[in-house]
Amino acid sequence: MIAKTRRFRQSTTIMFDIELYLETRKTEVETELFKSLPAIGSCPAILGEAMVHAVKSGGKRLRPILCLAAAEAAAGRHSGAMFPACAVELLHSYTLVHDDLPCMDNDLLRRGLPTVHAKYGEAIAVLAGDALLTLAFETLARTPVAGSTTMSQLVVELCRASGAAGVIGGQVADIEFAGNPTPEAVRYVFEHKTGALFRVAARLGAMAANASPESLHLLTVYAEHLGFAFQIIDDILDANQAKSDGQPELSCLTIMSLADARAWAADHTRRATEALQNLPGDTAALRALVEMLLTRIA
Amino acid sequence: MIAKTRRFRQSTTIMFDIELYLETRKTEVETELFKSLPAIGSCPAILGEAMVHAVKSGGKRLRPILCLAAAEAAAGRHSGAMFPACAVELLHSYTLVHDDLPCMDNDLLRRGLPTVHAKYGEAIAVLAGDALLTLAFETLARTPVAGSTTMSQLVVELCRASGAAGVIGGQVADIEFAGNPTPEAVRYVFEHKTGALFRVAARLGAMAANASPESLHLLTVYAEHLGFAFQIIDDILDANQAKSDGQPELSCLTIMSLADARAWAADHTRRATEALQNLPGDTAALRALVEMLLTRIA
Repeated sequence: MIAKTRRFRQSTTIMFDIELYLETRKTEVETELFKSLPAIGSCPAILGEAMVHAVKSGGKRLRPILCLAAAEAAAGRHSGAMFPACAVELLHSYTLVHDDLPCMDNDLLRRGLPTVHAKYGEAIAVLAGDALLTLAFETLARTPVAGSTTMSQLVVELCRASGAAGVIGGQVADIEFAGNPTPEAVRYVFEHKTGALFRVAARLGAMAANASPESLHLLTVYAEHLGFAFQIIDDILDANQAKSDGQPELSCLTIMSLADARAWAADHTRRATEALQNLPGDTAALRALVEMLLTRIA
Repeated sequence: MIAKTRRFRQSTTIMFDIELYLETRKTEVETELFKSLPAIGSCPAILGEAMVHAVKSGGKRLRPILCLAAAEAAAGRHSGAMFPACAVELLHSYTLVHDDLPCMDNDLLRRGLPTVHAKYGEAIAVLAGDALLTLAFETLARTPVAGSTTMSQLVVELCRASGAAGVIGGQVADIEFAGNPTPEAVRYVFEHKTGALFRVAARLGAMAANASPESLHLLTVYAEHLGFAFQIIDDILDANQAKSDGQPELSCLTIMSLADARAWAADHTRRATEALQNLPGDTAALRALVEMLLTRIA
C-alpha cells in the first residue's frame, strides 16, 4: 500500500490518479475501521452483528479520506489522522442507521442491502446506532495528541459537529421542512446535515496534524464548499432517479432550476479549490477530489 | 449552598444528614446540568425543547451525586468532578428516552409526565436521545484534567461503560431475556445496564480527583456493589406495584424468592460499606447512601 501511495504521489505534478488514491485510502481506512468494531463475545451477538452490518455495507469512505487528505495538506502525516477519520465514519454510519428507521425515512434498503432495522428489528437498530455513536468517541480518544492540540478540543469539535447544533439539528430541520422547503431551510440542512460532517472531517485531520490556525481555517473553508458542492450534486443525481416510496425529500431542486443548481455547484467547487492555495502540505488529493465531484454531473 | 454543606460536614462524626446532603448536591448538579443544555436558537426549537423535557423531568440525580461523593472520598475537591457528574446524568437521560420508545418499552409516562416520544413524536425522541448522548461527551470534555489522569482516559472510560459492552449491551440483553430470564441473564443485565453507570460515575469522580490506583479500585468495588443493591431493591419495590401494561420485565424476583433477594441486597450493601475503609477522603456520604438504600425495603 505504501509503495503504491508513493508512486502516485511522485506523479502529482504530471497527473494525479484520484481513483487510485481513493481506492488505496479506502482500503487503509477500512482496515482500521473494521478493527474498531466490537470483538466477538464482548457484547450480545445480535448487537455486534448489527454494528458490523451497518459499517461493512460499504460506501466510498469519502469523509475519512477527506480527514486523511486534510492532514496531508496541513503537512502532517496522515497516519496521525486515522483515528479521527474512523471516528467520523462511525458517526456517519450511526446517522444512516437512525435516518433509515421507520419513524424517519423508513428505508428498507441501502446500497442494495437490507437496512439495519429491516434485518435486525427496530429496537436493535436504535441501539446499534447508539453504540456506533459511542464507539466514534472511543475511537477518537485513541488519537495520539501532541503539540498544541488537546484531546478535549478534538472531542468538543466532534460533539459540536454531530450534536443538536450540527448533524442532529440538520436532520430535525430535514424532517420539518421536507414537505415545504424554503431557501433558508435548504441552506440550513445542507450546512448542518451534510456539511457539518465534511467540515469536521477536514478539521479533525488538520488538528491531528497540528495545523497552524491559518491552515485550519483554509481547510475549514475548503471542506464547507466541498460539502455544499457534494450535496447539490447529490440532489442533481437523485433527481434523475425515480424514488420508489414517493416520500418528499428536501432537495435544492425544489427551490431552484437545474441550471442554477449546476452553477451553484460549480461556484462552490471553484471556491473550494481557491482555499487550497497557501497550504503547506500536499493538496493534490483535495484538489482532485473536488474536481472529480463536478465531473459526476458533467 | 457552601455554608450548608460545611455545616453538615462538621457534624459527620455525630450524625450524617444524608437527606440534606442529597438535596444540596442535587441542587448543585441541576444548576450545572441545566446550563449544559442547548441555548435557545442554537438548534431547532423542538429538538431543544425535547432535550430540556428529558433532562428537567426530575429524578434523584443519584449517579451524578455518586460521582461527586466519590471525588470527596478520594480526597479530591468535588467541584472538579462536576462535569463528569453532569455527563453521566446526560447519558442516563438519553438511555431513558430511548428505552421508553415504542420499539422498546413503549412507555407513555415517566415520573408522572409524558415521555419524550409521547410528547414530541418518535423521530424527535430518537434524535433528542442522540443529542443528549453527544452532549454527555461534550460536557465530559470540559473536565479540567491535571495530574496523571488524561482526557483520553476519561472519554474511553465513559465509552466503555455506555457502549456495546456496557449499558447498550445490557439493554439488548434485557430485551432478549425479559420473557425468559436465567440467573446469568439477570446478573448480566444488572452489571451492564444499571451497574455500568453507577460504576463509571464513581470512577470518573475518582479520576477527576486524581485518585490513587488503590482508591480508584476501592471506589469501583463500592460502586459495583451499590449498583447491585440498588437494582435488587428496585426490583423488590417494583414487585409491590402493579404494572399497567403487563409487559414482562426482567427482575431478580423471577429467579429467586423475596427473602433471598433481601439477603442478596443486604450482602451487597455490606460489601459496599466494607470497600469504604482505607479511602483517604470523606466517605460519610457514600456510607450513608448505601445504608439509606437498604432502609427502602426495611
